[in-house]
Amino acid sequence: MRHAFLAHCRIVLGDSHVYTSAADMAPFLTDWRGRHTGLAMAVLRPGSVQQVADVVRACARWSIPMVPQGGNTGLVLGGVPDGSGAAVVLSLARLNSIRETDALNRTMTVDAGCILQQIQDEAAAHDCLFPLSLASEGSCTIGGNLSSNAGGTAVLRYGNARELCLGLEVVTPQGDIWNGLRGLRKDNTGYDLRDLYIGAEGTLGIITGAVLKLYPQPKASVTALAAMESPSDALRLLALMQDYCGASLTGFELMSAFCLELVATQFPQLPRPFSDAQHGPSHGQFVLLELSSSESEAHGVGLLERAIGAALEQGAIKDAVVAASVAQSLGLWQLREHIPLAQAKAGKNIKHDISLPVSSIPAFIERTAPLLQQAFPGCQLVCFGHLGDGNLHFNVAPPAGISNEAFLENQDAVNRVVHDSVAAFSGSISAEHGIGALKREELARYKSPLELNLMRAIKTALDPQGIMNPGKIL
Amino acid sequence: MRHAFLAHCRIVLGDSHVYTSAADMAPFLTDWRGRHTGLAMAVLRPGSVQQVADVVRACARWSIPMVPQGGNTGLVLGGVPDGSGAAVVLSLARLNSIRETDALNRTMTVDAGCILQQIQDEAAAHDCLFPLSLASEGSCTIGGNLSSNAGGTAVLRYGNARELCLGLEVVTPQGDIWNGLRGLRKDNTGYDLRDLYIGAEGTLGIITGAVLKLYPQPKASVTALAAMESPSDALRLLALMQDYCGASLTGFELMSAFCLELVATQFPQLPRPFSDAQHGPSHGQFVLLELSSSESEAHGVGLLERAIGAALEQGAIKDAVVAASVAQSLGLWQLREHIPLAQAKAGKNIKHDISLPVSSIPAFIERTAPLLQQAFPGCQLVCFGHLGDGNLHFNVAPPAGISNEAFLENQDAVNRVVHDSVAAFSGSISAEHGIGALKREELARYKSPLELNLMRAIKTALDPQGIMNPGKIL
Repeated sequence: MRHAFLAHCRIVLGDSHVYTSAADMAPFLTDWRGRHTGLAMAVLRPGSVQQVADVVRACARWSIPMVPQGGNTGLVLGGVPDGSGAAVVLSLARLNSIRETDALNRTMTVDAGCILQQIQDEAAAHDCLFPLSLASEGSCTIGGNLSSNAGGTAVLRYGNARELCLGLEVVTPQGDIWNGLRGLRKDNTGYDLRDLYIGAEGTLGIITGAVLKLYPQPKASVTALAAMESPSDALRLLALMQDYCGASLTGFELMSAFCLELVATQFPQLPRPFSDAQHGPSHGQFVLLELSSSESEAHGVGLLERAIGAALEQGAIKDAVVAASVAQSLGLWQLREHIPLAQAKAGKNIKHDISLPVSSIPAFIERTAPLLQQAFPGCQLVCFGHLGDGNLHFNVAPPAGISNEAFLENQDAVNRVVHDSVAAFSGSISAEHGIGALKREELARYKSPLELNLMRAIKTALDPQGIMNPGKIL
Repeated sequence: MRHAFLAHCRIVLGDSHVYTSAADMAPFLTDWRGRHTGLAMAVLRPGSVQQVADVVRACARWSIPMVPQGGNTGLVLGGVPDGSGAAVVLSLARLNSIRETDALNRTMTVDAGCILQQIQDEAAAHDCLFPLSLASEGSCTIGGNLSSNAGGTAVLRYGNARELCLGLEVVTPQGDIWNGLRGLRKDNTGYDLRDLYIGAEGTLGIITGAVLKLYPQPKASVTALAAMESPSDALRLLALMQDYCGASLTGFELMSAFCLELVATQFPQLPRPFSDAQHGPSHGQFVLLELSSSESEAHGVGLLERAIGAALEQGAIKDAVVAASVAQSLGLWQLREHIPLAQAKAGKNIKHDISLPVSSIPAFIERTAPLLQQAFPGCQLVCFGHLGDGNLHFNVAPPAGISNEAFLENQDAVNRVVHDSVAAFSGSISAEHGIGALKREELARYKSPLELNLMRAIKTALDPQGIMNPGKIL
């Protein structure tokens, strides 16, 4: 069976696109954080949508499980196989053409294997913006972004990957090609299959193409860093900024003073926007603000300065610096982007990608931090994230003097404290990373049995053989 | 069976909320355009979510079809029963409480039976905006808006009903209550059930509650009417306005000169923004523009005047008037809103609610108008709509001298010309009104068999008895 299947794949794809040696397959079997290495019967690299359909049909015929994979940058083990070796990895990387850009319709039609940055660049070449932006944009693929409904730093203004997609092309678990590549802003003709495949992490079908939304390129963006006492002051600032700036507010990133200290320790060459003397107890939190103006830099700066002036006057913030140049602006963003890097340098920690109603964030932090201290005295909270979206990266590092490895043994217990608190505040245990294999048990714990049953009914209806990325999500 | 079922419903709901007489049921059996009157075993009016679940469970037990109904303002016979008399109408009208407004989270949790205007008013009372806006907002319900994924005039900036909803509460066809009332901007924990129920027109379950997104209230809105030669000039204006104004552009409504003539004939008391002499052949099309400023009226006016100046300079438009007062602004909007009313006064016509890639609209009109003239010489095209969303109301009125009734006999043939052309341009035969019972056969004609099968698989998985609004969509 294995032999007949692989022979068929070699005919369809050509020998050079069917990997079966350990060396060839290795890059596709380990997730990029290096926490898991699976096994596969083969790695298949189709070069066209029709080839995807052909090999999927073969998988269906021989009942072979498939693991679709894009850039393999996922954080929840959604794109790598389990240890059984029964599955094939189906890499979409060779489907990497931009099919069409329609600047007047503000849409771009792309293959699933296009790298996110390639799409951003193509949009910019048409004087448009494709706003999806995240740390792995140089290597993640749009198919993976859509399958995991990626978030990132521009969600506040433009929404998640879901909101940036108008149409899809999907190969079903039976090997049929669904052409849902519509470039329409309004289309009420039946069930929303598009949004069902988006975020399904490849368990209902394989996204092979998409029609993406483009936006006018803003004329300027301006950045500032504000300092304040507490998360609830940060929330006051958010409301004020939205009131003053409306849709011009495109970034609002919370960072605790502890996060910035960590960056300063690990990367002393980076700028420190506030002098040491200012890092007193009244500067417990920092917010990185970004405004985009559709008019001009002067307009953006004026608006930002007025809003910051009002925030200072109302006591929501204690201090602020507005970037006076592109270099300064990049410097401020570097502080934000170096938090996970600083964490990595300091050693492994226990990460949570959670979301909450924005209004509950101060109370959540206030309640959860002491619970962690109680259970794990001296543990260090590295809390930062997209406050405007209610999305916190709520990471827990070991107490001073305890090794990272030893502390990681508490992972389940730490998860329980954090996720129970998230549930109590009606939040989500996975804001933007998805479920994959990593959070499957957590999902089963926190979702209602009814919701799990509804999901299973859909899974069974669309993939009755259960061969599409099995063991992920459900 | 009928007797036992109704007796059960009377126990659950109380006698006064189970209508069985013809007189009591009448308002629930005819659609609001008066084109169809169905029959029902009863009209049930539950007063709580639990009562909805209880009567749905009874329907499931006795295999009785249900037709969920909100404000009964639908345009495609989605909320009225067929002629068999087998079904019950399940009215959500008594579930009309606003459950909670969380201004800091910018969300509002509502019962499905809340009137849209009630929600808009409540948002305004919290200095927020709920942007969904459509002609029937004084009587349609949010449950109906979500079930039909309503569009309206603010889609360009804020999206359809789908984009304005974060969470749902749904009673399944088995009578279980799914609590998906999440107020989260990011939540990647499994399949997107929310968007599956949105737009399903009550065929997969009954929406009983929703968490809606609120926006900051803009500080000012300014309006203008621009005149141009052709739809392709209107498209140039759209690109220019989006480039100049970004998210501040909140309305962009196309109206042909013929539409404005029709309004002027039927409603001579309304203002005529351009003098008669100006209505020459070079003013073939008009666009109503609306800008919303998060800053001030002066900012909005300045931005609008700069953009209009550039459009005049580039020759995209021939003339423009900017409303100098709220009254003038309302006057301009009245012109737009009186087009369907003027059509109704002039007699029934053949309506189409279509969408196209925005960039294809000029070519679509250019190709389709002559096809109609060829097939129905002298017929009159009443073409207007939300150009920014690619959504046209492409209505066809009889030639002079032919009665409306006689012309209506051509409805199927006219639909064929228009919808075939829509399909050729990769458009949608239902942009914002949905499918219901009215467009079910058209859907079967234009959707691929694969897509119809995928929808049927989902329908069967979630409603295996087929009792949830049968005969709608599929």
